[in-house]
Amino acid sequence: MLLPSPILNAIEALSDLPGIGSRSAERLVFTLLKNNTGLEQKIGEALKNLNQSVQECEQCCFYSEEALCPICQNPERNTHQLCVVESPSDVIALERTHHFRGLYHVLHGVISPLQKIKPEDIRIAELLERLKQHPEIQEIILALPGSTEGEATALYLKQYLHTDHATPDEASASLDAHASVRKVSRLARGIPSGGDLDYLDVGTLTQALTDRRAW
Amino acid sequence: MLLPSPILNAIEALSDLPGIGSRSAERLVFTLLKNNTGLEQKIGEALKNLNQSVQECEQCCFYSEEALCPICQNPERNTHQLCVVESPSDVIALERTHHFRGLYHVLHGVISPLQKIKPEDIRIAELLERLKQHPEIQEIILALPGSTEGEATALYLKQYLHTDHATPDEASASLDAHASVRKVSRLARGIPSGGDLDYLDVGTLTQALTDRRAW
Repeated sequence: MLLPSPILNAIEALSDLPGIGSRSAERLVFTLLKNNTGLEQKIGEALKNLNQSVQECEQCCFYSEEALCPICQNPERNTHQLCVVESPSDVIALERTHHFRGLYHVLHGVISPLQKIKPEDIRIAELLERLKQHPEIQEIILALPGSTEGEATALYLKQYLHTDHATPDEASASLDAHASVRKVSRLARGIPSGGDLDYLDVGTLTQALTDRRAW
Repeated sequence: MLLPSPILNAIEALSDLPGIGSRSAERLVFTLLKNNTGLEQKIGEALKNLNQSVQECEQCCFYSEEALCPICQNPERNTHQLCVVESPSDVIALERTHHFRGLYHVLHGVISPLQKIKPEDIRIAELLERLKQHPEIQEIILALPGSTEGEATALYLKQYLHTDHATPDEASASLDAHASVRKVSRLARGIPSGGDLDYLDVGTLTQALTDRRAW
């Protein structure tokens, strides 16, 4: 091969990243070599340190350097609301809205039979245990993705959280007595801000029509 | 900030890469953390090693682990043809065609007054010195980009390479006597393979019309 092996190694490693093909990786490496600003050292160092001091928060499973993440440690957060999300990046996205002051629970995935992700592969057991330990949680907001997998996960969780339709026996078996007074909600579905209608899929548009609001 | 500093460092370092914004960098880092396959270690290691054993080929300025790159070392290459390119990735692109068996010269840039890249900032002196040392080079192919900067660089080089219109004095001043017999050519301009005409810019289409070929 024409290129020196350190270059090939870097191209190969970068092209293993999601969304970066071999051509993009090649371009990145050539740019790093050309600019010669030490950026590759900086990235190399940062990536090698990435996993060393990062763990999952004991309570909410978000990434944290300490046992509890900054959100769980914050005394100003509303401990009565719990927002269940698929991934840590969803926490970041929701925090950017500045419209939720409760706590989070990160599932680290959604149930997906196709990808062989079963309920026990994600942090559902931790969620149920947390609900048992924290009767002060009065509302659960399911902020799961709008995909089939997100739907499936919401439906799966429903049987444990939404005890309105559960018998008292089931409710006490899966959760404690406080569960019966918990509110469970899901994010609204509709057209995104600034979205053109003709680019939207049928499902979203149908949902937006069905859930239309008086104005 | 919410996220642990090792994660923030990795996001910041990756978002310094060309074409990768902070959101993409965030997504990459989260994927690395989630997959947990050690890829971040592999990339970190590869990038840290990148510059250590890579140098420019003494002859053609392509990247090399040894003094001469594999192309310059290859005895089967045609030493009478020299293809001048902007960057190492152009060498890779041309090698992929399997239609050029000569040698290369990598300028590592093109002249750009706007970006303050002057002739002395790129490997033009090395090219002229090489032509002086290697009278066996009979043809020079300028494979420079079709941009204004590529044009400007080709025009600048023309005065040193294309001695047809130069006086004997100029020719001998800038190059040795062999220069006067050298052929200089440029890549053909026209429509790209599979390209739709209505998406092409006026310049390309005009060039394609002007240079039309009997068929």
